[in-house]
Order: sequence, then structure tokens, then C-alpha cells
Amino acid sequence: GSPTAKKPSKLAELSYGNRAQLQTTHPLAAQLFRLMEEKKTNLCVSADVTGCEELLQLADSLGPHMCVLKTHVDILQDFSPAFIQSLRDLAVKHNFLIFEDRKFADIGNTVKHQYEGGLYQISSWSHMVNAHAVPGPGVVEGLSVVGLPLDRGCLLIAQMSSQGSLATGNYTQAVVKMAEEHSDFVFGFISGSKISSKPEFLHMTPGVQMQSGGDGLGQQYSSPDDVICKKDSDIIIVGRGILGASDRVKAAAEYREAGWNAYVKRLTASSQ
Amino acid sequence: GSPTAKKPSKLAELSYGNRAQLQTTHPLAAQLFRLMEEKKTNLCVSADVTGCEELLQLADSLGPHMCVLKTHVDILQDFSPAFIQSLRDLAVKHNFLIFEDRKFADIGNTVKHQYEGGLYQISSWSHMVNAHAVPGPGVVEGLSVVGLPLDRGCLLIAQMSSQGSLATGNYTQAVVKMAEEHSDFVFGFISGSKISSKPEFLHMTPGVQMQSGGDGLGQQYSSPDDVICKKDSDIIIVGRGILGASDRVKAAAEYREAGWNAYVKRLTASSQ
Repeated sequence: GSPTAKKPSKLAELSYGNRAQLQTTHPLAAQLFRLMEEKKTNLCVSADVTGCEELLQLADSLGPHMCVLKTHVDILQDFSPAFIQSLRDLAVKHNFLIFEDRKFADIGNTVKHQYEGGLYQISSWSHMVNAHAVPGPGVVEGLSVVGLPLDRGCLLIAQMSSQGSLATGNYTQAVVKMAEEHSDFVFGFISGSKISSKPEFLHMTPGVQMQSGGDGLGQQYSSPDDVICKKDSDIIIVGRGILGASDRVKAAAEYREAGWNAYVKRLTASSQ
Repeated sequence: GSPTAKKPSKLAELSYGNRAQLQTTHPLAAQLFRLMEEKKTNLCVSADVTGCEELLQLADSLGPHMCVLKTHVDILQDFSPAFIQSLRDLAVKHNFLIFEDRKFADIGNTVKHQYEGGLYQISSWSHMVNAHAVPGPGVVEGLSVVGLPLDRGCLLIAQMSSQGSLATGNYTQAVVKMAEEHSDFVFGFISGSKISSKPEFLHMTPGVQMQSGGDGLGQQYSSPDDVICKKDSDIIIVGRGILGASDRVKAAAEYREAGWNAYVKRLTASSQ
């Protein structure tokens, strides 16, 4: 060998497309990684509006720019099954996934009913949902009874963007463990940064805006570059940064570009 | 003074009625303590059924036995505003409070909309709601923007009855602190045991059955006597112990009696 001591090069990072192909990657995560690569976007739009018509307009106009549309159907004044059918059609048209941000947080027997039943029947249309780990593993087990037969997937909330969140330290570590133990249904995390080194797990980060700051109710913002390059997360979740813009399509295009450029920069840096 | 050393007697415990009269007691908690004393019941029925008609029948037939009716409106297949009006009428008829067990768990700006808006408009009819503390104090602040003007109140989830819950230790302590800092809106806890010594705070305990055991999805049960006498909680929450009985009214009467007897026993013990 060479007499010169050789520094071990940093392991080259896998692209979204490579991660889609890993044997251990959840089928829904693989679908998501692939469409991110195809559409060149790691932008999730948080569509926190209160009318169905406005939400459908957003989904149609921003659809080409995003990989995931995040919804809160329980804030819509005029939710209907017809609205859901239109939303599903748009998800096919623009190739994005629907993510009802329900934050399930009850015991297994209850979340099972909340996921499947009621007026919203979330499991019938939302490709992915999320859950808090605070009830213990029963929350995931209850959800997976409903979601697994439908090929759905779940993210666990490991960290939050709000001030004073209790999802830190040991709590976050317990969430990572719970995800690893339920990887047939859980394919990643809601977190501020990459918290699992397993490349099959996906990380999505809320509270993203071009400018940092807050909202007066505890929300705190980070920039796309911070989230993707410094915190090594995979998907930026942007709400008010786009919804509050005078030109929402232009804003979505800017966030998409910022998020994608940050990803390319991170990949390039890791391969040098 | 007497030469005989006098052991300090254990501070006599306040009755529900006495706690209603404390200056620091939240108006909604005072109303609840008073009706518990009047109706001689510390039973909350968890009405986890999926049809409105069945829920209304339960509320009417079990109404005389309970102080609180706990609902999950998001598991009802046929929710409607007319159902809510009927439920409110029954709450007046039988003098109980309605508690939508929503477990709010998002950032302040989101829970504000979830509490007030959507198809369920929870703030317009549910006397009390609950929230997880994991998002930090913003969750309470967002809810109180909506709930305070309507004289509503909130319980924080400090412990859970499910196996492997992360709401323990420092997490539980942080919840107590958050409640104390927001006592204009937060009037107590969902917990397995008494976790605050302040008599104005109310404790409600889920997972109560005559026999201990579990449900295969992580739920764990304690008896009324354990919960009220050993764990010093105030209200027993009973679901499947009543709903699964062949005679629900008889079962509710038995739980009511077991809970009330345990409370009288605790009061008597503390005054000796």
C-alpha cells in the first residue's frame, strides 16, 4: 500500500433515486423517492386553507412543483366526498402524494377508528399520515391494522418546529426506536433534522421559510438550505411562505428550486 | 402548650364541593365539581360508538349516572349539526358536561382552526377538550384564543394508560408546569394518578375497568378503587367496561357506585 496515510473519504451519500431501490425501503417511500427524482422536487406544500375550492386550485396550480401535498381536512368548512375525488384526480394528474397531517395521538383502538371511519375516512384517500409516539407503540399498531392492507405508510413525529416542544432528547430517541421496530408501516419522520442514519427512512421538516422568524404562536422557521444541507433532512414543508405570497405559483417554484439546489449541493459535497 | 408531642394530622382533604368554591378554581372546573357533588358521581363515560343514534341513546340512558360524557365525534359515521343539538339538549337535561377527546397536538395556529372550524366546530359545543403538551405551550395558547371567549376549558394529557407511553417522568413534570402557567384555560389533567397538589386542578383517569387487564393494542386497565383511593385521581373514565356490558345502564350504575364509594372512603380516611 501507499506509505501516505489516507483519510477515509466520507461515505458518498445516496441520491433519492438510489434510496428508492434499497431492499429495505418501504414501497410508499420508494414511490415518493422516485417521483422526487423524476420531478426534481423535495417540496411539500402545506395547504392550510379552509375552503375546498381554494385547496383544489392550489393542488392544481402548485402540483407540478411539489412531491407531497399536506392537508388538514378537519379545518375545511365544506369537506365532501366529491372534494376528495377531485383531490385524488389531481394527485394522479400531477404525480404527488397526499399527506393528511392528522397527528394521531391516541391509544391503538381509538386511532384505528379515527383513521378509517368518521366523515373523513382518511385511510381511503391519504397515501401517508403521521402520528405522535407519546401513546406508545399501540398508536402505530392500531394505525397499521387499517393502513397496511391499503399499502399506506406513516411518519412518526420525532421533533417539532414549535417553541418549547417536548419532543427532544430521549423522547426523540424513543421515536427513532419505535420507527425501527415498525418499519413495515413507518417509513420516516417529521423532524427538524436527520435523526436516523438508515437511508431507507425519509425525513420531512416543517417550519420552512426563506426568512427565519416566528408567528407569535410559537412557530419557528428555518431556510430550505439550512434544512437540506445543514440538517440533512429530505423534504421541506412550506405553508405560509407560499400561501402568504402574492403569487403562490412563483413562490412555490422558488421554494422548489431552493430545496432542490440545496439537495444537489449536499450530494455534490458528499461525493468529493 | 401540652407536654404531649402532637403528631401533625394529615391535612384533611377538600371535598369536590369545597374545591368548587376556591378562588383559584377555573369556572368550568367549579361547575363540574358542583355537579359531581350534586349528582354524587365521578364517572365519565367514554362513548366510543360509531353511530349518532346509539350515542344519543347512551347519553340519555346513562346521563343520570355520569358527570362527563367523553366523545370522539371523528369516529361517527353520520355526524350532523342536528346530532350536536340533540346532544347539547341531553347535557342540559341530565346535567353533565361534554368532553370531546380530540387530543389536540399541533402548533398553535393549526389547533386554533381545528378547534373552531371544519365540519365539527368543536369549540361551539364541547365544554372541555384536551391537548398533548408535546408541541410546547403554543398548543394551549392557540386553543385558548378560541376557547377563552366561550368560557371553555382544557385538560392537558400528562400520562396515558397505554403501554410504553412516553408521557412519563420529566415529560409529565413539564406538563404540570405548562398547566400552572396557563391556568386561565387549563383546569386539570388526563393522568393515571394525582400529579399536582393544587386542589383547583382536576384529574381524570382513563383505562378504568372493574377487572385489570389489557386489550391487545396496548391499553391497560385499573380499578375504580385503585384510581380514586390509591392514585388520588378525581374522575374515572370508563369505556368498554360499560359499552361491552349486556346491560349498560346497570354497568354504569355499578361504576358510578364504585367510584363514589372510593371517593367517600378517601375523604373519610383523610379526616381521621
